[in-house]
Amino acid sequence: MRKILLIGSGKSTSYLLKYLLNKSTSENLFVTVADLNADAAKKSIGNHSNTEAIALDIFNEESRRNAIKNADIVISMLPASLHIEVAKDCILFGKNMVTASYISPEMQALNDAVKAKGLLFLNEIGVDPGLDHMSAMQVLDRIRDEGGHVILFESFTGGLIAPESDNNLWNYKFTWNPRNVVTAGQGGAAKFLQEGTYKYIPYNRLFRRTEFLDIDHFGRFEVYANRDSLKYQSVYGLNRVQTLYRGTIRRVGFCRAWHIFVTLGMTDDSYTIDDSENMSYRDFVNAFLPYSPSDSVELKLRHQLKIDQDDIVWDKLVELDIFNAKKPVGLKKATPAQILQKILMDSWTLDTTDKDMIVMYHKFGYEKNGKQYQIDANMVVLGDDQTYTAMAKTVGLPVAMAALAVLNGKITETGVKIPVFKEIYQPILNELITFGIEFKEKEVPYLGYNPLNS
Amino acid sequence: MRKILLIGSGKSTSYLLKYLLNKSTSENLFVTVADLNADAAKKSIGNHSNTEAIALDIFNEESRRNAIKNADIVISMLPASLHIEVAKDCILFGKNMVTASYISPEMQALNDAVKAKGLLFLNEIGVDPGLDHMSAMQVLDRIRDEGGHVILFESFTGGLIAPESDNNLWNYKFTWNPRNVVTAGQGGAAKFLQEGTYKYIPYNRLFRRTEFLDIDHFGRFEVYANRDSLKYQSVYGLNRVQTLYRGTIRRVGFCRAWHIFVTLGMTDDSYTIDDSENMSYRDFVNAFLPYSPSDSVELKLRHQLKIDQDDIVWDKLVELDIFNAKKPVGLKKATPAQILQKILMDSWTLDTTDKDMIVMYHKFGYEKNGKQYQIDANMVVLGDDQTYTAMAKTVGLPVAMAALAVLNGKITETGVKIPVFKEIYQPILNELITFGIEFKEKEVPYLGYNPLNS
Repeated sequence: MRKILLIGSGKSTSYLLKYLLNKSTSENLFVTVADLNADAAKKSIGNHSNTEAIALDIFNEESRRNAIKNADIVISMLPASLHIEVAKDCILFGKNMVTASYISPEMQALNDAVKAKGLLFLNEIGVDPGLDHMSAMQVLDRIRDEGGHVILFESFTGGLIAPESDNNLWNYKFTWNPRNVVTAGQGGAAKFLQEGTYKYIPYNRLFRRTEFLDIDHFGRFEVYANRDSLKYQSVYGLNRVQTLYRGTIRRVGFCRAWHIFVTLGMTDDSYTIDDSENMSYRDFVNAFLPYSPSDSVELKLRHQLKIDQDDIVWDKLVELDIFNAKKPVGLKKATPAQILQKILMDSWTLDTTDKDMIVMYHKFGYEKNGKQYQIDANMVVLGDDQTYTAMAKTVGLPVAMAALAVLNGKITETGVKIPVFKEIYQPILNELITFGIEFKEKEVPYLGYNPLNS
Repeated sequence: MRKILLIGSGKSTSYLLKYLLNKSTSENLFVTVADLNADAAKKSIGNHSNTEAIALDIFNEESRRNAIKNADIVISMLPASLHIEVAKDCILFGKNMVTASYISPEMQALNDAVKAKGLLFLNEIGVDPGLDHMSAMQVLDRIRDEGGHVILFESFTGGLIAPESDNNLWNYKFTWNPRNVVTAGQGGAAKFLQEGTYKYIPYNRLFRRTEFLDIDHFGRFEVYANRDSLKYQSVYGLNRVQTLYRGTIRRVGFCRAWHIFVTLGMTDDSYTIDDSENMSYRDFVNAFLPYSPSDSVELKLRHQLKIDQDDIVWDKLVELDIFNAKKPVGLKKATPAQILQKILMDSWTLDTTDKDMIVMYHKFGYEKNGKQYQIDANMVVLGDDQTYTAMAKTVGLPVAMAALAVLNGKITETGVKIPVFKEIYQPILNELITFGIEFKEKEVPYLGYNPLNS
C-alpha cells in the first residue's frame, strides 16, 4: 500500500481524510493521521480501515523523522509557521509534500534543494489560497489561448454564514479564525491597480471604500480591498493589466458597521488597556469616548460618529450588547482587539446547527480583435454541518486530490510551487465539480471602472 | 577662565551663545563652539572675544575627547541620538553636562556612573521638554506646599507663527522640524486620564478630539492630545491625580483640516509610493481616491470626505495648491508623508521677515480644605527675527542659565536629571522673567471635565 502521512487533524481535515479513505481501497492507500493530540487524531479516523492515528510532537525530531521516513507522501495541515521542519525532513528523505498554506520565505528558500531532489512541494492548494489560483488561472489561460489580452482581473473570497443560518443583523458569524477577522486590513495601506494607476486606501478608510457584487440566487455582497492586490501579478502573468484588485467578501452593510470599530480604535492590537480585567463592555466603549459627567455612552458615540437616530448601523451595535454595564470583559492586560473579539464571539459564535458558506467571485476583462469583453465567474459552497463545513470541503478536497495526483505521478512539476499550472489545476477543478464545487461563468458587458460606458 | 564647550551651533543656539558671551567677562567664561561645520561655528561667534570656534566630528574619538577633556562643562546641542558618546566621555573626564533633549534609555543607563563621579547630567532643559517641566513644577510644588491636593493637570505647548506673520488660512508655518509635524501623533493611540478613567484616541480620531484654549490678547487656540500624557505622572508626583492630559497647541481650525490628510492616508510614512518621482501634486491626491473616468479629483475628495461647498476647510486645501496637475512631486520612492511635507513646505516655509511664537498653557486643578480650585498659567513668547527666534530663546536661555548655575556650583543634584527640582527651576524661572519669558497665572473656577458645574 502507498502510505500517506497527514500531519494535523484540525478543523479543515474532515473532507480531506474522508476523500482519501473513500479511495483507500481502489487506490491502495494507507493514511496515517498524526497529531499532537492523539485523541483528536483517533476521533478523526473513526473506525475506518486502511488508516491509523498516531501522536506526534513535530518538535520531537526523532518521532517526526520516523513518521516522515515511512511515508510515501506528506500532507501538512499544521499552522503555516510549523511546516518548515517537516519540509526539511521531506527533503532529507526524498518525500513530496502538500500544504494549503501561503509559501513562507523559509519555504521558498528550499526551492533549489527540492528541485535538486526531483521533488514537488505543492503549497497554497486550499480555498484561499488555492481554489482562487486554480479557478483564476483556468479562465486566464483560456482567454490567452484564444488570443485575448487580459486588461482587468479582480478576485474576491469570503468565508460567511449560510443563508439558512444567517440570523443576525451583521449577516456574519465566525466560521474561521476570529482573530484574523478583527485585525483584518491592519499594518499598512491597501494597494491596488485601477485603470493603470496605483491606488492606496489607508486602514481608516478601508471599510468605507467597498464595492458591491451580485450573485444569482444569493443576492448582494460587498467587498473591501486586501492589503496587497498585486501579490500574484507576475505569477498570474498579469504584468500589463490595467486593473488588479483582490478583496474580501462580506454581506452588504457589514463594512459600514465595522468601520465604527475601526474609527473608535477598538480593533487596535498594538497596546494593552489598563485594568481591562475589571471593565464592563460599556466601560470598554467609553474608553474611546470623551468624558462626560452626564451624557450617556450611547449619545456620545452617536455624536462622535454622527450616527442618526434611525440608522440601522446602531441596531447592529446594540445587538452585540456592547453597552451592557454588567457584562465583564474579564481579560487581563488585553488589547482593544482582544476585547472586541471576546465581545463579538458572544454573538458570532456558530450554533451547533449552523452551516457556513464560502463565496468566491472573479472578474476577467480582456481585449480580443479590438473589442473588450468581460467574464464574471463565481462559486458558492455551503457547509453540511459543523464537521463537514464549506471551509473544510474547499480546503480539504483540493489538498487531497492534489496529494493523490502527486502520488500517482500525474504531475511533472518540481520545486516549491503553487497550483497555477494547467496539469495541476485542470483535473482538480474537473473533479471538484463532482463534489458540487463549481464556478458559474457568465459573459457581461465590459465596464472596467468606466461605468459611463454602460 | 572657566571653559564651556558648546557642541553644535544649530538653529537653537543663538540666544544660548549670546547669553553666555554677554556674561563671559563678569563670569570669567571662555566658550568653545564646536561644530562639524567649522564655518557655521565661526559665523555663530562673530567677532566676540572670550570665544573660539572649532571643527569637531563627534564620531572622531580623539578630537571629541580632546575637546571634552579641556572643558569645565559641556553643553550638547546635538540631535538627541548623538549625545551618548559625548556623555560617556564626560564621565571619563569628570565633566558636568547639559542638554535640551529627552533622556534616552542609553542616557538613563549612565545614571549610576554619573552619580558615582558626583556629576550632574541635566537634560530636558529647553522649552518642551524644559520650560514645561519647570513652570509646571513651580505651581505644583506651591499648591502642595500650601496644603493643596492636585486633582487635575493639563499642559499644552505649541510652536506657531507670530500674529504679525500669520497670513495663511491654516494660521501655521513651519517654525521647527517639518517632519515631526507631518508624522505627529502616529505610532499608537493617544492615552490620557480624564476624571479617573483612562481614555484612548486612535490616530484617525486624534485631530477631531480637540479642545479650545483662550489666551488674553492672543485669542483662541486648539489642542490635540500627545501620545502619552502619563509620561511624567510619577516624576511630577501626580500619581493620585484624576485628570492628566498633555497636548499640542495649534490655531483653531488647523486640526479639522489636518484630519483630511490623516483620513486620506497622506501622512503615512510606512511605505513608498510607486513612481512618486513622476507624479504631480494632483496625482498624489488622486492616488488616495477611487478611479473615475469623468469626475474630478476635487469632487471625488469632497464626496469621500463629505466636505460641503461652503466649508472653509476646502479653501485651506486649495491654498496649498494640492490640486495642481503641473507641479511635480519630484521625489524618488517617497513615502506619502515625505510628499506631503514637500507640498506643505511650498506654503509653510517662513519668509525672511517672519517671526515665530511659542505658546504654553497649563491648567492646575486642586482641592484644599474641601474646596476645589483651578489655576491657569500661560506663556507666549514672540521671536525677534529668524536668528533670534522664540524657539531659540525658550530653548537656549534655560540651557545657558542652567549651565552657568551648574558651573557655579549652585546645584547640588547629581546623576542624570531633568529640571523638576526647586533649586534648579526657581532661579531660572526668575531670571527668564527679565528676558520677557513669564507665565501669567489666573485663578479660574474649577470645572474639570464637568462643564455642568458651571
